[in-house]
Amino acid sequence: MMNGSNTELKDRLRSDRAFSLLRSAEEAAQFIQDGMTVGVSGFTPSGYPKAVPLALAERGRCGETIKIDLYSGASVGPEIDTELTEAGMIKKRLPYHTNSVIRDKINRGEIDYVDLHLSQSTQYLNYGVLNKIDVAIVEGLAVTGEGHIVPTTSIGNSPSFIKNADKVIVEINLDKPLSLEGMADIFILDNPPCRKPINICSPGDRIGKPYMECGFDKIAAIVVTDMKDQTRFLSKPDEISKKISDNIIKFFEKEVEYGRLGKSLLPLQSGVGSVANAVLYGLCDSQYEDLTFYTEVVQDSMLDLLRSGKAAVASTTALSPSPDALERFLDEAEFFKDKIILRPQEISNNPEVIRRLGVIAMNTAIEADIYGNVNSTHVMGSKMMNGIGGSGDFSRSAAISIFSTPSTAKGGKISSIVPMVSHVDHTEHEVMVLVTEQGYADLRGLSPKEKAVKIIENCAHPDFKEQLMSYFERACRVSALHTPHILNEALSWHSKYIDTGSML
Amino acid sequence: MMNGSNTELKDRLRSDRAFSLLRSAEEAAQFIQDGMTVGVSGFTPSGYPKAVPLALAERGRCGETIKIDLYSGASVGPEIDTELTEAGMIKKRLPYHTNSVIRDKINRGEIDYVDLHLSQSTQYLNYGVLNKIDVAIVEGLAVTGEGHIVPTTSIGNSPSFIKNADKVIVEINLDKPLSLEGMADIFILDNPPCRKPINICSPGDRIGKPYMECGFDKIAAIVVTDMKDQTRFLSKPDEISKKISDNIIKFFEKEVEYGRLGKSLLPLQSGVGSVANAVLYGLCDSQYEDLTFYTEVVQDSMLDLLRSGKAAVASTTALSPSPDALERFLDEAEFFKDKIILRPQEISNNPEVIRRLGVIAMNTAIEADIYGNVNSTHVMGSKMMNGIGGSGDFSRSAAISIFSTPSTAKGGKISSIVPMVSHVDHTEHEVMVLVTEQGYADLRGLSPKEKAVKIIENCAHPDFKEQLMSYFERACRVSALHTPHILNEALSWHSKYIDTGSML
Repeated sequence: MMNGSNTELKDRLRSDRAFSLLRSAEEAAQFIQDGMTVGVSGFTPSGYPKAVPLALAERGRCGETIKIDLYSGASVGPEIDTELTEAGMIKKRLPYHTNSVIRDKINRGEIDYVDLHLSQSTQYLNYGVLNKIDVAIVEGLAVTGEGHIVPTTSIGNSPSFIKNADKVIVEINLDKPLSLEGMADIFILDNPPCRKPINICSPGDRIGKPYMECGFDKIAAIVVTDMKDQTRFLSKPDEISKKISDNIIKFFEKEVEYGRLGKSLLPLQSGVGSVANAVLYGLCDSQYEDLTFYTEVVQDSMLDLLRSGKAAVASTTALSPSPDALERFLDEAEFFKDKIILRPQEISNNPEVIRRLGVIAMNTAIEADIYGNVNSTHVMGSKMMNGIGGSGDFSRSAAISIFSTPSTAKGGKISSIVPMVSHVDHTEHEVMVLVTEQGYADLRGLSPKEKAVKIIENCAHPDFKEQLMSYFERACRVSALHTPHILNEALSWHSKYIDTGSML
Repeated sequence: MMNGSNTELKDRLRSDRAFSLLRSAEEAAQFIQDGMTVGVSGFTPSGYPKAVPLALAERGRCGETIKIDLYSGASVGPEIDTELTEAGMIKKRLPYHTNSVIRDKINRGEIDYVDLHLSQSTQYLNYGVLNKIDVAIVEGLAVTGEGHIVPTTSIGNSPSFIKNADKVIVEINLDKPLSLEGMADIFILDNPPCRKPINICSPGDRIGKPYMECGFDKIAAIVVTDMKDQTRFLSKPDEISKKISDNIIKFFEKEVEYGRLGKSLLPLQSGVGSVANAVLYGLCDSQYEDLTFYTEVVQDSMLDLLRSGKAAVASTTALSPSPDALERFLDEAEFFKDKIILRPQEISNNPEVIRRLGVIAMNTAIEADIYGNVNSTHVMGSKMMNGIGGSGDFSRSAAISIFSTPSTAKGGKISSIVPMVSHVDHTEHEVMVLVTEQGYADLRGLSPKEKAVKIIENCAHPDFKEQLMSYFERACRVSALHTPHILNEALSWHSKYIDTGSML
């Protein structure tokens, strides 16, 4: 157990009962048994438990046979996914990950992975479709006098994990300052048919409580730690990312010119990663003002937009700045407290609110086809990369859904624009704007053939344009003409890559 | 112009100004010019204008060059799609059709067809993405003293067409009894960012007005007609449909047994057509009671459920009984007035309400693959059948999404369960239950490989089971093991059918 000074701990554990539940990570890990379903806090390596999972992994490494089904909000840190995977302790994993060690095991068929729309994972749990949670391990800032848990830097599925759990283990993280308290807005939904409207009409609206309901009867142990989140490094925006960002901004400019968007645009959602981060950096120098975000993760660029006053407010379920930016953010938590609202992912990603607010959803693709179908999960149709995450929640109910990808991958050997994607996560019906460093294609209101011409002309890399146009023209000669295809050639680009290492 | 008696007309045209706008269909059709965008009322051949489109088609057949973009709610009758297509007058069509004549032209590449989620077509229009409506032609029961239009048997996109139109032509249909007045509940959404919650917490909630706002300034002509809607005949439930229905009810029984559904289930949505109709007939003799519907179309079976008291209320955007059932319904309109609510399709199909109510969405597939991806639009990947309609609106935000299809087509030569679908409309992430006459596969919470085994075992036709399992097992030996595929074989079943007329 960490040694927080007793004074500091009293701010965190606000009753004697909480103090009486203090245990070491090793003691707490004993509550987890073979065959259990464990729910952990965490969303984009942020706000996830660390000490207890490490102690659990140690038991596995020491020869105990423990296999668990592991549920999270979204991606968590290596203390969970790497350690538990290497110790051979994960049987089934859902709903999202970004970890290379578990990715490898999933693609070797050693771990069953259920890739879910993030807003749906809570529903599956609350509806009784998924296993009940035996133990929830949740990072907290503090435990209230009533045994409720104040969350740290992500909410994710934690409120529902706690609600559905037999036992709850709380990891109080002294590295996360108490000044974060009040940023969370916890409101969870009843099951239908008893639901009322979610009363969010603007990204900044608060509708809930600053803590997650739990109660002492459920808390099996409280562990104190000061381990830091291993958030992701963000690479500096490269030329390609900058061009993608420029093209998205060109699209916005056209929308403003046509009177379809105003100077504040509409609430923005932006996916995770370096390209997504670069896109938002592009907005720092733009003409837009009073921007708002209704999104699932806040990265460095969004914090900068809030700092500069360019953006007014961000609703999210996780804060996931790069390690340096995280330190700075934690120091400035007080400044951000009225500018950031942390919500459960069933609210941050809820189609009701996304549709109502008219969110502009910006997500990344692995590949797109000439008809505007997007693959965001599977490399060459079979290999799971990370998962669909919230991209479907947002893009499907968005006012404008934008997908971006560099036009090539693997040093130019893979075209990200193909005749037919090898897996579909976002269909032609909801992919509205496709963007590469080459340009953007506004697909709204177009027929499939109109889309094909625009995508090939505006988005494909010059090295592949001719081949793509040749496919399209030949398809137009041999198949029905709504969505022309040559079925025994449609996936041949992928097959060629698998066989030769190049689509060229 | 039809000769309604003056007394009857006075009940329909409730001001002198309305009478002054009376024109013949031929006169009204003159408002439509080459290059215009025309919006027509109608959803599942119901409540669509007939006299003016026929008069317009006549102009085309007489040699006038008129090409229009034609927008509707969903499918409309042959007086529009057949006649205008045969007269060569449609350039672009959206968002849905079910007409064989226009289908043929679409697949020959002579008409551009934009296949949209039905709830999105209104947004595209209101956001200014689609052309402005030059002329809206709308069937009405009556024109109020203020020039507002009381709709007949469907609402669809009409309120937004009227709002966005330069000119409106009203077809008053004397065949539709005034006793229908009051069934409609017209509420349309502002554009974001100014939207409020849609205050529907139960399928029967009324939130709007009984008429569509228009005003006399927009009305260019009022035409009186008594032409009947050419609604679709429904074939008698056959053995296959009955077995599919039985399997869906078995699934419901299991959900009730597990405590995941109660005796009233949850609000039901059901797609259009004979199989969908048969599924609901299965509920007539079931244990369930106080059923409710939150759906886009009411067919014969739903009327029977309401008549018998088995169902309490149906929210819909269209009434589309078969011709005989329609006559009976119109005679009994008074009985149904407090049991049926007709809403605009942006409300009937709105993800906000669908998610809140926890709708059980039941839609049909053309084919599904072993991983649970569903194709509901394209035959052999290229040929457009009808369109995605509302199936995506409902299934994507539903509490439970069910897709059904007979396990084979073309006399057993096509397997509806294939290694990889030739087009994806509903992805593995949101297809929860797959049903054929062979059985059902509950896919919730399963990994792709678990889904494959269950779908092949429970849903595939015995003639194709071995082939499917062979594909799956061989794929497991050669590709990454998250979603095993052999890409150069994945679509070979379709290619074989195209080449030989059989997948066997």
